[in-house]
Amino acid sequence: MTSFTLGELAARVGGEVVGDAGRRLSGLRSLAEAGGDDLSFYHNRRYLDDARASRAGALLVADPAEFPGRDLLVCREVYPAFAALLELFHPPVPPPAGVHPAAVVAASARLGAAVSVGPCAVVGERAVLGDGAVLGPHAVIGDDAEVGPATVLHPHVVIEPRCRVGARCILHAGVVIGSDGYGFATSGGVHGKVPQVGIVVVEDDVELGANVCVDRATLGETRIGRGTKVDNLVQIAHNVVVGEHSLIVAQVGISGSTTLGHHVVMAGQSGAAGHLRLGDGTVVTAQAAVMADTKPGEMVAGSPARPQKEWYKALANLLQLDALRRRVRELERAVGKLGGEK
Amino acid sequence: MTSFTLGELAARVGGEVVGDAGRRLSGLRSLAEAGGDDLSFYHNRRYLDDARASRAGALLVADPAEFPGRDLLVCREVYPAFAALLELFHPPVPPPAGVHPAAVVAASARLGAAVSVGPCAVVGERAVLGDGAVLGPHAVIGDDAEVGPATVLHPHVVIEPRCRVGARCILHAGVVIGSDGYGFATSGGVHGKVPQVGIVVVEDDVELGANVCVDRATLGETRIGRGTKVDNLVQIAHNVVVGEHSLIVAQVGISGSTTLGHHVVMAGQSGAAGHLRLGDGTVVTAQAAVMADTKPGEMVAGSPARPQKEWYKALANLLQLDALRRRVRELERAVGKLGGEK
Amino acid sequence: MTSFTLGELAARVGGEVVGDAGRRLSGLRSLAEAGGDDLSFYHNRRYLDDARASRAGALLVADPAEFPGRDLLVCREVYPAFAALLELFHPPVPPPAGVHPAAVVAASARLGAAVSVGPCAVVGERAVLGDGAVLGPHAVIGDDAEVGPATVLHPHVVIEPRCRVGARCILHAGVVIGSDGYGFATSGGVHGKVPQVGIVVVEDDVELGANVCVDRATLGETRIGRGTKVDNLVQIAHNVVVGEHSLIVAQVGISGSTTLGHHVVMAGQSGAAGHLRLGDGTVVTAQAAVMADTKPGEMVAGSPARPQKEWYKALANLLQLDALRRRVRELERAVGKLGGEK
Repeated sequence: MTSFTLGELAARVGGEVVGDAGRRLSGLRSLAEAGGDDLSFYHNRRYLDDARASRAGALLVADPAEFPGRDLLVCREVYPAFAALLELFHPPVPPPAGVHPAAVVAASARLGAAVSVGPCAVVGERAVLGDGAVLGPHAVIGDDAEVGPATVLHPHVVIEPRCRVGARCILHAGVVIGSDGYGFATSGGVHGKVPQVGIVVVEDDVELGANVCVDRATLGETRIGRGTKVDNLVQIAHNVVVGEHSLIVAQVGISGSTTLGHHVVMAGQSGAAGHLRLGDGTVVTAQAAVMADTKPGEMVAGSPARPQKEWYKALANLLQLDALRRRVRELERAVGKLGGEK
Repeated sequence: MTSFTLGELAARVGGEVVGDAGRRLSGLRSLAEAGGDDLSFYHNRRYLDDARASRAGALLVADPAEFPGRDLLVCREVYPAFAALLELFHPPVPPPAGVHPAAVVAASARLGAAVSVGPCAVVGERAVLGDGAVLGPHAVIGDDAEVGPATVLHPHVVIEPRCRVGARCILHAGVVIGSDGYGFATSGGVHGKVPQVGIVVVEDDVELGANVCVDRATLGETRIGRGTKVDNLVQIAHNVVVGEHSLIVAQVGISGSTTLGHHVVMAGQSGAAGHLRLGDGTVVTAQAAVMADTKPGEMVAGSPARPQKEWYKALANLLQLDALRRRVRELERAVGKLGGEK
Repeated sequence: MTSFTLGELAARVGGEVVGDAGRRLSGLRSLAEAGGDDLSFYHNRRYLDDARASRAGALLVADPAEFPGRDLLVCREVYPAFAALLELFHPPVPPPAGVHPAAVVAASARLGAAVSVGPCAVVGERAVLGDGAVLGPHAVIGDDAEVGPATVLHPHVVIEPRCRVGARCILHAGVVIGSDGYGFATSGGVHGKVPQVGIVVVEDDVELGANVCVDRATLGETRIGRGTKVDNLVQIAHNVVVGEHSLIVAQVGISGSTTLGHHVVMAGQSGAAGHLRLGDGTVVTAQAAVMADTKPGEMVAGSPARPQKEWYKALANLLQLDALRRRVRELERAVGKLGGEK
């Protein structure tokens, strides 16, 4: 098993050692599971007691003052350092390059260098796979679709025809890119299908969680911006544009033609109605329903969503309505008495 | 590239030309993307400025008065005309008929004329595929299941045994038809499985979005009525009946044994409890939770849902509680003073 | 067709017969569909009229007094008896044992006795399948993953590498076990991936609905306790622990590192924030959003969730705000008059 000294780990992440720089560590484990040969980490105050009680050989922390007498790796930004060290202790193992004999690849498809195509994967006519792309078992790449270099598709990912996924993306199992948008023209009570002839473009460095659905545009593109991370079971409708470096948490739904700026956060189970603009850095709290445009940096809550402070004030008032009602009753008694005394 | 004159397009959809009927158009594009050779369209007031600024060669509109001096195709119902013209400019390309050599089709299955069975699709014993049915890669048709004529299953659709899908349906990638209903008989704190021995029936002309789940009935049928359109990631539980021509938007959940009338609309992320009846034409707004039967044509909102007007009135009152509280405080001061003056 | 006398059926479930114990029954059907040769059942007061009107030859009920003059099978716990009789009338048909020639099984995988591996299923290096395990078509078992004895995986289930599923589990179509948790370390506005190197453990007798996603832990385990039943389209994030015998209804989302006790119920479309503890027997009502720890047996509602009684009281108050406001206006008039009379 590989091991590192605390000093080597500190050098790797640009941190400083407090205590024994020569202490040898062979794993990176949670506070509860770490033993004397392991590094662990502390970055959430909720777990301070656990961190103090941990039997870890050393701790990755931001503030050494909280852990007197312990061997520490001190970094200003604990979480990025934790990520880097996790990768050090658990280097990713790329699947073997080559096309599995049980895959079905069209003769007209163009495969880059060192691609890996798993068993039963299907690659359509004229599809393009960039260098080092990985297709898990049963991935389906439609005709004329593109998968960028070093992008990894887990099992059962579907890229419908003509859609494009950029470089270094990760698409988890069951992702569907390019299903038809939900567009119908109703006439006489019958919903006629509006053909969905646009595409989906997923830019570079995007991650999409398991069973995420991204619909193709009616015309033009549905687009997910560079560096955006999408959690499981999210719905992104036709012609939506998600800006760069946004975070879309599990089970969010974004309705058609809505545009999100960059660095937007939509928390779990929240939603946005169609044809809206969410400004850069908008934060939508869990289960909120955005029904109107938001300004850059705005934080909204509630269903329909309101500015977050206003909504929480309203909820606090709501929970004190019993008290307000009692005061009104008091007043009615007092006024009745005053009136009767006339 | 095919092109049409504005006059030809008008004839196709029963519209009228304002301006140059001989103008030749080779594409149908969005307001922003259309150039001089393209038709575009305007049907949502939100985009009036965009429509006026569009460089499209001609516009499909309902009211010519809003666009003086432009070449127009005028239709009373813009959206159905748009759908028809989209299909004209982008005629669907059916996949080649035949069974892919990497498909696995039971000898006892009955395949209609001109069916298309994609690579790695699996068709079970005694399954029936109607004429012109299309099975995308990795579609799985269980034993004794039926897929109607001209129905299209995108990749990875699963039809569990004995379930039936009608004619001209479209099932997007990852749809699951006939998973077991969520039925347990709890005894002594242990949840025993209630066998789910019923089926799912999807009637004709239904569209189901990506990763939609429709559970089989405990006994009898779960049924989705003719012409109903279901968006991505919707959950339809055992023994639900969805009436004809309903619209079930993304991430909706309908609990067991609930019955929807025809032309019901459930907006995104809304839900309905079990054993309810939603009257014909009920409209459930986004994120609402229906907990009681609804009358025909009723519109409900909130969680639990109330008549929409009542709920919006209540929310408006909620946001003015600060003002009401100030008025009560004023009253208390005034009454205190009056009492003191006695 | 197999048939049974009412007496035989009663003996099977430890119930008592009222009426003709020799009556022969060949099916178990719903109240509406049952005929004279069928048993039906009554266990929900909502359907009392339907039960009385049913043409079923006999009824399974808890209280014979409600059905004078009918042939009855009387059980104190109707629903478990119903489940047992359903299985009697519809004995499960296991798929044939063996590995389908179109499956792809690694030479290093260990397959127990009588396993069934369907067409196009993929079993990775060193994976283990317990005795009698069933892999439906296109199931994907990652390297070093384990599937316990008698566990059934429906089509398209994905078990990512190293994850473990126990004995007698049922995983419905499209389930994803072991997708990466949603973990990112943001630095300079860029979200860096935190490697997710833990696993998922699904204990014995768990059922997971269609398209459910369970993320692997960052470190350590995500765990679903013995006997827990999860409905369709549920999201379970990294490092979540769900206790034994819990019920997680459709479209629920549980955020990272949250721990549920045993016998917790989360109703449809509800959610829980991260790093919480939900006590044993907690009940979360539909669409509620749990944002704080709950005590054992607590019932919560609303978004953010409050004790259920408090929340329903608040909602009732909310709907009566118009009345309260009128009373305040009355008071203002009365006080104005009193003041004027001074």
